[in-house]
Amino acid sequence: MDVTLAAGSAWSDPACPVARTVDLVGDRWSLLIIRDAMDGAETFTEFHQRLGIARNILSDRLRRLFEHGILDKYAAADARSHTYRLTEAGEDLFTAVVALRQWGERHAFAPGEPHSILVDGKGREIPELHTVSQDGEPLSTATSHVQKIT
Amino acid sequence: MDVTLAAGSAWSDPACPVARTVDLVGDRWSLLIIRDAMDGAETFTEFHQRLGIARNILSDRLRRLFEHGILDKYAAADARSHTYRLTEAGEDLFTAVVALRQWGERHAFAPGEPHSILVDGKGREIPELHTVSQDGEPLSTATSHVQKIT
Repeated sequence: MDVTLAAGSAWSDPACPVARTVDLVGDRWSLLIIRDAMDGAETFTEFHQRLGIARNILSDRLRRLFEHGILDKYAAADARSHTYRLTEAGEDLFTAVVALRQWGERHAFAPGEPHSILVDGKGREIPELHTVSQDGEPLSTATSHVQKIT
Repeated sequence: MDVTLAAGSAWSDPACPVARTVDLVGDRWSLLIIRDAMDGAETFTEFHQRLGIARNILSDRLRRLFEHGILDKYAAADARSHTYRLTEAGEDLFTAVVALRQWGERHAFAPGEPHSILVDGKGREIPELHTVSQDGEPLSTATSHVQKIT
């Protein structure tokens, strides 16, 4: 386990990996901070400018993401402030953020409505993620289910 | 566009598909309600029992998910209450929820710590999602970037 809740907090549903993830990052501003960190934002000022969020809320979310092991904190060049970078666990949220992006592209824009796109180093758009079984069959909620701990 | 914000609301970052998705479902309880709906919960009582959430918060989130086009609402058999089911757009959040689950499995559990697992119809665990380029190269935040609207 390389991430953790803040001291004194408890998992809302300890046996469920979805719930643990949501406990750690499932908050509107946290997800947008993670998005911006993936896109190169590092300083309080950069996050503040991109998000247009109240300073106290931004402070709180940055502190929480640091406590949870999603962001690392480094002394900035001027030594009075910090630089934030995603930890390895934070970087690994990439696929989850891509999945949220692709759902938004499919459902939250009118046909032809412009939106930002995610591209690889050669400028090519990134293919859609699909959940498939071990032999490559497409899966959905209808063809999969959660097996609880017994 | 088959989902939408409630009347009077505005997208926090209109050109970004991640932000639109987060505006619609990026809230701790909304994500857990969607998880439970994928797992078969349909009535207010079922969501209430699974989530252990205050009734007024649950009402608010169900109403919001209905307004956003993520949940549909049907008269229940007793005609005094409702049954909630995911819309097509709601069902399509499957891959995003799977991505959140798999991240939790990788990072939020100690080695060997038991957790629920997602299996296909034959009881086989579902393979990990990976973000890859058009020619199958693994991608990360370092090898991809967001192209803004010009």
